[in-house]
Amino acid sequence: MTLHPDPDAADRAALRTTSRLRVRYAETDQMGVVYHANYLVWCDIGRTEYMRALGAAYADLERDGLFLAVADAALRYHAPARYDDLIRVDTWIERVQSRTITFAYEISRDDPDGPVRLVTATTRLVALDRNGRPRTLPASLQEIFRHARPTP
Amino acid sequence: MTLHPDPDAADRAALRTTSRLRVRYAETDQMGVVYHANYLVWCDIGRTEYMRALGAAYADLERDGLFLAVADAALRYHAPARYDDLIRVDTWIERVQSRTITFAYEISRDDPDGPVRLVTATTRLVALDRNGRPRTLPASLQEIFRHARPTP
Amino acid sequence: MTLHPDPDAADRAALRTTSRLRVRYAETDQMGVVYHANYLVWCDIGRTEYMRALGAAYADLERDGLFLAVADAALRYHAPARYDDLIRVDTWIERVQSRTITFAYEISRDDPDGPVRLVTATTRLVALDRNGRPRTLPASLQEIFRHARPTP
Amino acid sequence: MTLHPDPDAADRAALRTTSRLRVRYAETDQMGVVYHANYLVWCDIGRTEYMRALGAAYADLERDGLFLAVADAALRYHAPARYDDLIRVDTWIERVQSRTITFAYEISRDDPDGPVRLVTATTRLVALDRNGRPRTLPASLQEIFRHARPTP
Repeated sequence: MTLHPDPDAADRAALRTTSRLRVRYAETDQMGVVYHANYLVWCDIGRTEYMRALGAAYADLERDGLFLAVADAALRYHAPARYDDLIRVDTWIERVQSRTITFAYEISRDDPDGPVRLVTATTRLVALDRNGRPRTLPASLQEIFRHARPTP
Repeated sequence: MTLHPDPDAADRAALRTTSRLRVRYAETDQMGVVYHANYLVWCDIGRTEYMRALGAAYADLERDGLFLAVADAALRYHAPARYDDLIRVDTWIERVQSRTITFAYEISRDDPDGPVRLVTATTRLVALDRNGRPRTLPASLQEIFRHARPTP
Repeated sequence: MTLHPDPDAADRAALRTTSRLRVRYAETDQMGVVYHANYLVWCDIGRTEYMRALGAAYADLERDGLFLAVADAALRYHAPARYDDLIRVDTWIERVQSRTITFAYEISRDDPDGPVRLVTATTRLVALDRNGRPRTLPASLQEIFRHARPTP
Repeated sequence: MTLHPDPDAADRAALRTTSRLRVRYAETDQMGVVYHANYLVWCDIGRTEYMRALGAAYADLERDGLFLAVADAALRYHAPARYDDLIRVDTWIERVQSRTITFAYEISRDDPDGPVRLVTATTRLVALDRNGRPRTLPASLQEIFRHARPTP
C-alpha cells in the first residue's frame, strides 16, 4: 500500500491511500466480469488499510469495543473488472461527524499506462458499541480522522 | 414467492413481488450480523423472481443475447439481519427507459407479527449485448416492464 | 424441506432431509457454472435444516454455548450446477462420536424427471465451547443424532 | 509471491510457490473466524500464482480454450484464521496425468516467528474444452507441470 496526498483536498482530510489487489476467479460471474457486490468488499479493504495507515487499525478498535457498521452505501459502475486484473482502490475520508464517518473510494484497473476508472463509491459508517447500540466516536479518533495527513 | 399489488403505485409499475429466504451462516461476519455486501445479492434474487413473475426470466434473456448489468446501486441499512432469520425481499420497478431499468427493494425480517424493515435499496441496470456494449431494451420488454400488473 | 427415510440405513441414523434452493447469479463464475467453493455453503444449508428437523436448531446450540466447527471436508464434483437451476441437498448423518459428528450430502439438480447428481460431500464437525476449545457433545444431543428417525 | 524449492521433492514437481494475502472482514463469520468455504478460494489464489510462476497463466489458458475444473477437493482444518491475519498459501503439484492435475496446499498464518499451519488441502482438476467436455492437457503443458523447477 502507498500513501499519497490528495491535491484537491483543502478543507477535508488530505490523506489518500492506495490498496492493490488481484481479481480472484471466485469474484467473477457468468457475465465474465466481477460480480457487482464484490466491489463493496474491495471498498472494505481500502477502508481497512486507510485506518491502518492512520494508526487506527480496525481490528484494534473492535477489541476496544468500537464497531463501525455500514449505514449507507452508494456505488457507480463505470467499467467492469475481469479475472486476474490488477486493481487499485484509492480511499479517502469525505466527512467526519460525532457518530459517523463517510469514506469515498475510486476503484481502478491498474494498467501500466495509468489507472482506468471502474467504480466510484461512498460508504457512511456509524459507530456502535459491543451490543450494537449507537455511540459517539472517541474524540481522539475524530481528531485523527479529521486531520488525516500523509506521513512525511 | 407471492405477488401482490402495490397500493401506492399510481403512475409506476404496479407489480410488487415478495421473495423469501433464510439467512445462511456464510452470510454472517464477526460482528454477528449479515455482512453488508450480501444485501446486494438478495436484491438480485428479488429482481430474478420479479422478472420471472413477468414471464421474462433473466436466464432466458441472457440466452437471447440481452444482459442487464448494474450501473448504480444505493443501499440504506436500517437494522441488521442475523443467522437463520427469515427474510423477505419486496421488489418493484421504479423507472423504465429505453436502455435502463431501475428496481427498488425493501428487505425485511419476516417476523410472525409483521415485517421489520432492514434495508432499502435501488439498482439501475443497463442493457448490454453479448459483447458488453450498450443496447436498447427490446420494445416488447419495455412494454412488459412499463405495464407490469399483478396477474388476477 | 421434506423428510424421508433412507432405505439403505440400517445401523446408522435413518433420517435424511432434503433442502431446496435456486442457484444465485452471485454463485456463478466466468466458466458459466457455480463456483466450486459454494457447494460447501449448500452443505451448510443442508446441515442447518437437518438439525432443525431433529429439534436441535444450530442457532439455539450456539446460544447455549455449543459451536460446531468444520474439521474436515471432502467433495467430489460430478456435474456442474448453473444459474437459476433448482437444487436439492440431501443430508444425513454418517457418524457420531463424543466430540465429532460427520454429515454426508448429495447435491442434485432437481429436474422434473428426477434428480441429477452434481456433488457428493462429507464434512466432519468438531464440538467447541465459546472460547473455541474442544468439548464433548452433550449426551442428550449425541442421543438425538444417533437415533435420528423421521417423524411419522 | 516468492518461489522456493521444495526440499522433500524428489520425483515430483519441485517448484513450490508462496502467495500472501490478508484476511478480509467479508471472509469472517459469526464464530469470529474465517468461514470454512473461503479456504478453497485461497487455494485457487495459490494455484493461479503457481501457474503464473510456471509461465502458464490460467487466464491465458482459458483464452486458448483450456479450462481446469475442480473434480475433487479435500480440506483439513487445523486452526482458524482471523480477520486481518496475514496468510501464506504454499502451493505445489502432487500429480500430473494426461487429463488431470492435482495441486496440494498448505495455508498458514504468517507470524513473525514462523508460519502456523491452519489448513492443508488438495484439489484435483480436470481439463475441459470450451464446451465443458473433458480433453487432454496439451503435451507441452504436461511437460511444464511435470518438470516444474524453481527458476535459478
